Amino acid sequence: MSLSMHAASVPVFKQMLAALGGVLAKAEAHATERKIDPAALLQSRLFPDMFPLTRQVQVACDFATSVSARLAGEEVPAYEGGDETFADLQQRIAATLAFIGGLDAARFEGSDQREVVLRPGTPKERSIGGQAYLLAYGLPQFFFHVTTAYDLLRHNGVEIGKKDYMGSY
Amino acid sequence: MSLSMHAASVPVFKQMLAALGGVLAKAEAHATERKIDPAALLQSRLFPDMFPLTRQVQVACDFATSVSARLAGEEVPAYEGGDETFADLQQRIAATLAFIGGLDAARFEGSDQREVVLRPGTPKERSIGGQAYLLAYGLPQFFFHVTTAYDLLRHNGVEIGKKDYMGSY
Repeated sequence: MSLSMHAASVPVFKQMLAALGGVLAKAEAHATERKIDPAALLQSRLFPDMFPLTRQVQVACDFATSVSARLAGEEVPAYEGGDETFADLQQRIAATLAFIGGLDAARFEGSDQREVVLRPGTPKERSIGGQAYLLAYGLPQFFFHVTTAYDLLRHNGVEIGKKDYMGSY
Repeated sequence: MSLSMHAASVPVFKQMLAALGGVLAKAEAHATERKIDPAALLQSRLFPDMFPLTRQVQVACDFATSVSARLAGEEVPAYEGGDETFADLQQRIAATLAFIGGLDAARFEGSDQREVVLRPGTPKERSIGGQAYLLAYGLPQFFFHVTTAYDLLRHNGVEIGKKDYMGSY
């Protein structure tokens, strides 16, 4: 037996996004306790031309959604909510978990052999096999934004540890 | 067809570690050009109780090595080199790439069903199935340290971008 494309995608995204929700909850509590303006954390960046926390979370959710949808052969859903507050970010995570959790695992079968088009309609458009799309593109991108969200909060003094990043496994 | 355990581990580690070598080369060049003491980057941290850059690289290499070795049913090799300079870190990455590149892909077959013992001999010892060991533990840990090494350098003003993090895919 070997891995299914579903096993290597959706459960990984679920674990890490649920953990990210916990990390954000600790960040919000930290801001409340110390009377810190939540925007000081939400808009913080590790460098001026990097994304702020809000966008790191948004992009992590976008990768989980789009990678899962494309592997399942489904349309990538548009998200209509905002990304301004901690509550908004929790809502986006919840919406992402609901969407990817609702995808039929059977739809992922054979997706390792299916071609996926990256950045369709742009000058950087490129076709890539499903296996590389997940392992060489989707997972590295997803983990980048989840880790950077954590790093940003850690850098700002929120008391979180590796356990919070890893979640339940 | 579905994914092999080898495909979901060794090539991912290789891509990201080769990219990390490139990121570190840019960091070293940045230090040289601006007459910055390399230790200012090598010993930098995002927060006082987080690991410095040297250790982020070391731990990323350790996870790539130990996860690959355990899935292949091989002994985890000890690494005798240092981790003080940029040259040391490049050497560690090269040693890691050589070790994981030398593992026989066939040895990974069935490893998804094999039990792996985490933190053996410690109070936190725990047995976990090979599939979860890779997807729910090894990859998240590995990506954490690769991303944090990148984030640290980015935070310190080294001119690198997502492309440098992603490497060739």
